[in-house]
Amino acid sequence: MCVVSSSTNIAYLTGFHGSAGLFVQSAEGDCLVLDGRYATVATEAGARGDMASVSVVTTETTYEAALAEVIGGTGATRIVFEADHVTVSLLKRWQAAVPGDFQGHTSLVEPLRLIKDSHEIAVFRRAGAALAGVAARLAEWVREGRSERQVAADINLGLSRAGFTRPAFDTIVASGPNSAHPHAHPGDRRLSGGDLVVLDFGGVLDGYCVDLTRMAAVGRPGDEAAGIFRAVRKAQQAALDVMCAGVATSAVDGAARQVLDAEGFGAAFVHGTGHGLGLEVHEAPRLSRLSPPDERLRAGMVCTVEPGAYVPGVGGARLEDDVLVTDTGIEVLTAGPRDLLTV
Amino acid sequence: MCVVSSSTNIAYLTGFHGSAGLFVQSAEGDCLVLDGRYATVATEAGARGDMASVSVVTTETTYEAALAEVIGGTGATRIVFEADHVTVSLLKRWQAAVPGDFQGHTSLVEPLRLIKDSHEIAVFRRAGAALAGVAARLAEWVREGRSERQVAADINLGLSRAGFTRPAFDTIVASGPNSAHPHAHPGDRRLSGGDLVVLDFGGVLDGYCVDLTRMAAVGRPGDEAAGIFRAVRKAQQAALDVMCAGVATSAVDGAARQVLDAEGFGAAFVHGTGHGLGLEVHEAPRLSRLSPPDERLRAGMVCTVEPGAYVPGVGGARLEDDVLVTDTGIEVLTAGPRDLLTV
Repeated sequence: MCVVSSSTNIAYLTGFHGSAGLFVQSAEGDCLVLDGRYATVATEAGARGDMASVSVVTTETTYEAALAEVIGGTGATRIVFEADHVTVSLLKRWQAAVPGDFQGHTSLVEPLRLIKDSHEIAVFRRAGAALAGVAARLAEWVREGRSERQVAADINLGLSRAGFTRPAFDTIVASGPNSAHPHAHPGDRRLSGGDLVVLDFGGVLDGYCVDLTRMAAVGRPGDEAAGIFRAVRKAQQAALDVMCAGVATSAVDGAARQVLDAEGFGAAFVHGTGHGLGLEVHEAPRLSRLSPPDERLRAGMVCTVEPGAYVPGVGGARLEDDVLVTDTGIEVLTAGPRDLLTV
Repeated sequence: MCVVSSSTNIAYLTGFHGSAGLFVQSAEGDCLVLDGRYATVATEAGARGDMASVSVVTTETTYEAALAEVIGGTGATRIVFEADHVTVSLLKRWQAAVPGDFQGHTSLVEPLRLIKDSHEIAVFRRAGAALAGVAARLAEWVREGRSERQVAADINLGLSRAGFTRPAFDTIVASGPNSAHPHAHPGDRRLSGGDLVVLDFGGVLDGYCVDLTRMAAVGRPGDEAAGIFRAVRKAQQAALDVMCAGVATSAVDGAARQVLDAEGFGAAFVHGTGHGLGLEVHEAPRLSRLSPPDERLRAGMVCTVEPGAYVPGVGGARLEDDVLVTDTGIEVLTAGPRDLLTV
């Protein structure tokens, strides 16, 4: 008996996309527990063949009560749950409502999601090409005198027109001093001469997330800013060059970090080199110093490669592409020019 | 010694907005633990006076290690944490890294967020008026032959132009049969004669979320569809009419539900009547049958009022406004015409 409560993992296993629900797997068969908001959606998705064949139970009161009923019906006493997704409070409510021995496990479903199947790879190829298409239009939108917010609104509209369901995260347009913040929010600052501009955006297509960063400069960047960009570009290439199945994820980070260290930006590279992509925009594997040393790239993994360097008061740069690990090497899903776009 | 890990609660208590971090409160002083991605943001926010005066510790390795160091420095042995926000896995990692007695509490910070202060109310008034302004433009965007996705893109651009940082959730444009799904995603379906169209959207302004639903009809709706709208409109008014400080939150739901029951749509009203608004788009209080019977509206609460009725195969309707409970009654923050917009 296993209870899956992460909505992303439920979507992966069943095809049902909602913000709530529980998926109960047992020897007696699989069962999706939903509340009234989603019953029609699930019935229609089932009829269209968009969902795995599972029985659907609609809660009349609380999810705990429905869970007690479903589990009670099977007679199971050992109940495995997702320790990474169940809060201490929720577990307490389940334990109060459902008799049995609850056993938390980490990574019940995530290892399955790590390696993309042929359907998922086909979606990623379409999504990567569509995102590169949006990036190809940046020169229309990034202009001196426009605000970060205006540029971000254009990118978001571009994502929508390119067929993405929604942005995969809040679009980042970070100009001048703001470019030194890896996670800046677009504001009212207007792009002005000498600025470096970080343009980091992504989209969700058929449920899957892609993510890309390009750099622009307003007029001629100063020597220091130009140096940051050159170092990041070289670091990204170094990371891409070492990637193939069998290489340690930490070694990909190491390749980028070695370049930035050598160029004097080691301390300015304040995040990891990349993260996995899938139904979530951040998932396994991480390409990081902190990755488990025995974790290796495998064919079918999809991840970002995005070194950056951030110098407070001067500016920052990041370049990001999405990569599929293949049997023979890698495939860059977001292929396109990575030059500093001078506007 | 108290460890706050919900990023929303950290934002509420400190003014720091990020997707990671821990806030440690102790007799020795308060401390924000961040990773390298956020150190510059926090330093600059502090310098601008946008953040509470707290010391900032930057993690060199993991948050667990940093937490052990901070807590070790205080000599505390009893560590209170947010049971609603800490997963079973995370607690295990903390317990492995930090000696002490971890005690999970629910609602450590949320009760403070329930009653809005004068700064928050001022933001809500601006945000509600801006959202009503976007709603006033719906007639420009909702037209026969356009796709749900196109209308949603226009609404999103309208939110951006109205000054919102981002949509508060995925904009819903649900037409014809799709309107029978309370949480539909905009798709390629084109608006056509006789459709009811649910338009549900919201925005984030200065960190706070507002949320509104209006209804349109393409041409003359059928009698059944028109009846659904009329019943929902009457139910929303009934809920608004009973709202004031001291009334049970479940009674507000009851007022709307009684109308829909009487009109024959009791079973078609598959969700609660409303939810609180704040830094999150869904927060306390819930206006629901399932609300604690002793929970009452209090001056300073802000919540949505959004009854709906959904008839599979025919269509659905929802009307939603945001309401501030005051000392003397209520103030509708999103005031504007709620008529069925005929296009």
